[in-house]
Amino acid sequence: MAKPSSSLSTPHYGKPLAGWRLRWYTIIFEADTRAGRVFDLSLIALILLSIAVVMADSVQAIHQSHGPMLNGAEWLFTVLFTAEYIARLLCVRKPLQYATSFFGIIDLVAVLPTYLALFFPELHALIDVRVLRLLRVFRVFKLAAYVAEYQFLGRALAASGRKILVFLSAVLMVVLVMGTVMYVVEGQTNGFTSIPTSVYWAISTVTTVGFGDITPKTDLGRLIASFMMLMGWGILAVPTGIVTAEMAAQRQMQVSQAPTTRTCHECLSEGHGPGADFCSSCGARLPPYQQHADTAS
Amino acid sequence: MAKPSSSLSTPHYGKPLAGWRLRWYTIIFEADTRAGRVFDLSLIALILLSIAVVMADSVQAIHQSHGPMLNGAEWLFTVLFTAEYIARLLCVRKPLQYATSFFGIIDLVAVLPTYLALFFPELHALIDVRVLRLLRVFRVFKLAAYVAEYQFLGRALAASGRKILVFLSAVLMVVLVMGTVMYVVEGQTNGFTSIPTSVYWAISTVTTVGFGDITPKTDLGRLIASFMMLMGWGILAVPTGIVTAEMAAQRQMQVSQAPTTRTCHECLSEGHGPGADFCSSCGARLPPYQQHADTAS
Amino acid sequence: MAKPSSSLSTPHYGKPLAGWRLRWYTIIFEADTRAGRVFDLSLIALILLSIAVVMADSVQAIHQSHGPMLNGAEWLFTVLFTAEYIARLLCVRKPLQYATSFFGIIDLVAVLPTYLALFFPELHALIDVRVLRLLRVFRVFKLAAYVAEYQFLGRALAASGRKILVFLSAVLMVVLVMGTVMYVVEGQTNGFTSIPTSVYWAISTVTTVGFGDITPKTDLGRLIASFMMLMGWGILAVPTGIVTAEMAAQRQMQVSQAPTTRTCHECLSEGHGPGADFCSSCGARLPPYQQHADTAS
Amino acid sequence: MAKPSSSLSTPHYGKPLAGWRLRWYTIIFEADTRAGRVFDLSLIALILLSIAVVMADSVQAIHQSHGPMLNGAEWLFTVLFTAEYIARLLCVRKPLQYATSFFGIIDLVAVLPTYLALFFPELHALIDVRVLRLLRVFRVFKLAAYVAEYQFLGRALAASGRKILVFLSAVLMVVLVMGTVMYVVEGQTNGFTSIPTSVYWAISTVTTVGFGDITPKTDLGRLIASFMMLMGWGILAVPTGIVTAEMAAQRQMQVSQAPTTRTCHECLSEGHGPGADFCSSCGARLPPYQQHADTAS
Repeated sequence: MAKPSSSLSTPHYGKPLAGWRLRWYTIIFEADTRAGRVFDLSLIALILLSIAVVMADSVQAIHQSHGPMLNGAEWLFTVLFTAEYIARLLCVRKPLQYATSFFGIIDLVAVLPTYLALFFPELHALIDVRVLRLLRVFRVFKLAAYVAEYQFLGRALAASGRKILVFLSAVLMVVLVMGTVMYVVEGQTNGFTSIPTSVYWAISTVTTVGFGDITPKTDLGRLIASFMMLMGWGILAVPTGIVTAEMAAQRQMQVSQAPTTRTCHECLSEGHGPGADFCSSCGARLPPYQQHADTAS
Repeated sequence: MAKPSSSLSTPHYGKPLAGWRLRWYTIIFEADTRAGRVFDLSLIALILLSIAVVMADSVQAIHQSHGPMLNGAEWLFTVLFTAEYIARLLCVRKPLQYATSFFGIIDLVAVLPTYLALFFPELHALIDVRVLRLLRVFRVFKLAAYVAEYQFLGRALAASGRKILVFLSAVLMVVLVMGTVMYVVEGQTNGFTSIPTSVYWAISTVTTVGFGDITPKTDLGRLIASFMMLMGWGILAVPTGIVTAEMAAQRQMQVSQAPTTRTCHECLSEGHGPGADFCSSCGARLPPYQQHADTAS
Repeated sequence: MAKPSSSLSTPHYGKPLAGWRLRWYTIIFEADTRAGRVFDLSLIALILLSIAVVMADSVQAIHQSHGPMLNGAEWLFTVLFTAEYIARLLCVRKPLQYATSFFGIIDLVAVLPTYLALFFPELHALIDVRVLRLLRVFRVFKLAAYVAEYQFLGRALAASGRKILVFLSAVLMVVLVMGTVMYVVEGQTNGFTSIPTSVYWAISTVTTVGFGDITPKTDLGRLIASFMMLMGWGILAVPTGIVTAEMAAQRQMQVSQAPTTRTCHECLSEGHGPGADFCSSCGARLPPYQQHADTAS
Repeated sequence: MAKPSSSLSTPHYGKPLAGWRLRWYTIIFEADTRAGRVFDLSLIALILLSIAVVMADSVQAIHQSHGPMLNGAEWLFTVLFTAEYIARLLCVRKPLQYATSFFGIIDLVAVLPTYLALFFPELHALIDVRVLRLLRVFRVFKLAAYVAEYQFLGRALAASGRKILVFLSAVLMVVLVMGTVMYVVEGQTNGFTSIPTSVYWAISTVTTVGFGDITPKTDLGRLIASFMMLMGWGILAVPTGIVTAEMAAQRQMQVSQAPTTRTCHECLSEGHGPGADFCSSCGARLPPYQQHADTAS
């Protein structure tokens, strides 16, 4: 139905015309050749491995026993990804367009933290944004059906986006007012140390998360909290209702659009089901039914 | 479809006929002229700024370092809002009608806390109700589409209001009975110090908030709590179901009302369904139905 | 549509034929006369008051300052409710049928705790089941529309009852297995002291309540908990989906049943909207539209 | 509609032709004879009892008072279940097919833990997987309707499985990135001791479980947490929307398939819609459509 969004399909940074740049481009950016496929799969393995290394390195016990080894591995990955980034820049005809594209920025951000960590050690862990590089997987494996599902979700969310925005603005007003009231009612001795903290508590209550690090202690505070919990419960239904109604409508549209190709040749009436052999309006014989792959997803 | 609710559209407090009051009215209450637009935008900036000041002032560290400055800023804002309130009162023809309107009361309440804080310091933080003044934003920016979304949400909630009320009354009975049972089972030594406290706990459990400040300790109490959690899970579905069913119905109505492009050529009445052959207003034969791509989105 | 369930409409315990018993019956069981209305309203006030007394009495501070007075009030209420119960028994023709009816049992249970508390003081607080007596309110105030809403909720829940039962049995199996696994993984030192306790924790996790009184400490335990939380999130959608689909279907049925009364007198085609003046199938003039009160709820 | 899945209906491990093996097979695998029914009911009772024994044994107080007795009971159950497993193996014609079937593996796993506990005592509690044997109940009691409900749930979940997988992969990426950010922002002193721990916290926050064993302490961390809670709230709607839309569609299909009473008088084909005038299978004119009360329930 809708055409795949360009960020997930083959990008258009300018395919070189000939020479080594075309060969590199075919390997790095495309997944149709054997070499390109091997390259993409190795890249995915490297990304997953480098994330595992960063996660393991953050665990104190592992860091103390295998710290230097993990550090070495991380530098290896970073050097490889840097080389890959430079290769990408070199082999496209419009390097600037690649560098400012969604994946170009992610590719850069994925190598920066290791270098920056030389100066700001605490940024070290941010290497995990490398996980976003995996979004390429959908392109690599030609997971067209999954892309369609993403688009289904995306369309439904986009269609209800404005409703959700309006809803969020209402929730933020409520949460600000209620947080302030609780700050006044409970006061600083009961953990509601400031209005921002109270708003944080109000959000955790209305969303039914309920950490419990801050809780009302006075009777009036508990009464207000009870009211907020019931309210949060009620309005929890709102975003669900918005998204569900949208999805049901999208789904119905898919279904109702599927068989419009089936028209009676005699009276031109439409909407005959897949199992019908005769037109239900004039009784003429229908043309044979053909399942279309693109409408069945 | 439905006409915008009067509280969000241009108000009707009586527009003056001429003189400085008309000029002021045009600036303060309307947003069509350049001056009116500048006034409204400055007002929004002032409201956001004054809220930020109150929130910052409530943080202990900031209060100690910048307390006097923030206090001065707050008085400045309050004087400005007071002047604005008086100007609004002066330039309308029916000041009493404005003073008792929804926005009139909010405008008053938005300035009161600073004055009251002279006598009751703890009311100081309530200035944050100023955030409700931002509801005007929708009028200022002529966000007609957003107003429509608010009305969609409002209609759906209003239509399911009675169902939700009935549901809430049932939940309150359950919560009162279960809270009392837990008070008897767990007793005061396990944190269930009184029936109101137990009801507060029951509400936090049934709504799946689960603060964890009070938790059952005995085996029987935990059995009952498990039962309540599963029950809460089940009935969590009820308000969601109510609102979702309502929204899906409203949305379907929108869709079915959408083909207003189908107009009778004789009487120009609109809204004839896809299956109609004759105009339902004047009985004339309708032009053949054509599905339009833009009504399917 | 559906006839009101007999337990909420006027009961049938046998109306006496004449004498003081008929007069009492009219006052106590019916709400059509002025005396009956006054009686019902006083009863509701007494019920709410007696619940308030029990709740207040459970708060330690109030109990110490006003204990004897509250105790006296409670005995007063109990005597009144006992007298009322005996009067109800006396004035119906079939006392046994009343005593074994839903409201008859609640009326008895509502007075028992005070007497039992003489022997088992801890049962004292159970007087709060008196709140269930308020279910009569719906009959008293002739809140027919609200009864209809209750029935709407009830029908939707009953229709999905078997699905929810199947769903609950699946959840219970999952929770038992996962609770046992966590008991093995985390062990008694981390708070998972027994399998029942672990199952209680598993329920609180899967239902997204998350008290936090027991939490996994080991890495493996946290991995399993993460998996359970995501799973709980996913299956949270199931009861919601069941109830919502049922409600949407019920609502659609209401809508589709509403206008079937509008039939074209010429061609007998049905389903003409409330705003149509002419038949959309044959072009004949439609009979005037009449809104029916009972189909509009 | 759909035929019952083979794993829940009578299995096909090869029914013996004659002799004691046929008699045993009839008792153990079938539930049509009186002996088979008694066998199945005793089995269910034994399973429930053995689970109760393991759960009771895990409670410290009960273990100390009745430990040896419970241990004996457990060995008795294990011996019985082992004998039953061997009997099942003996009387089918294709023992390997049974041993590798779903229920064959569960039957084996249900007896293993007691034996393994001789060597690895901590595996003892895993006997609770015996609860999965209860899945047979649905076959035993010929709970055809309940099996249909399971299939309804299963179909709806399977149909939305790919959407939910895509959704989960997106959630996992978000949770990994947010967990890493919180690890950097909050640091090890505030409980976010490693990236895996932070991811565990992020999952408990986004799913609105909110244990509260780890909570943000810094202002920036709380701001990010607030954002995550609101986001989690919004995307909580997505799986609900997916499943609900699927269920509503399945339910509508059931309903639309319901008027099978509308049958062509010529070719006896069923399922003609309310608006059809001619049979869609043979082209004959259909009898006029009559709404039946019983299909509207």
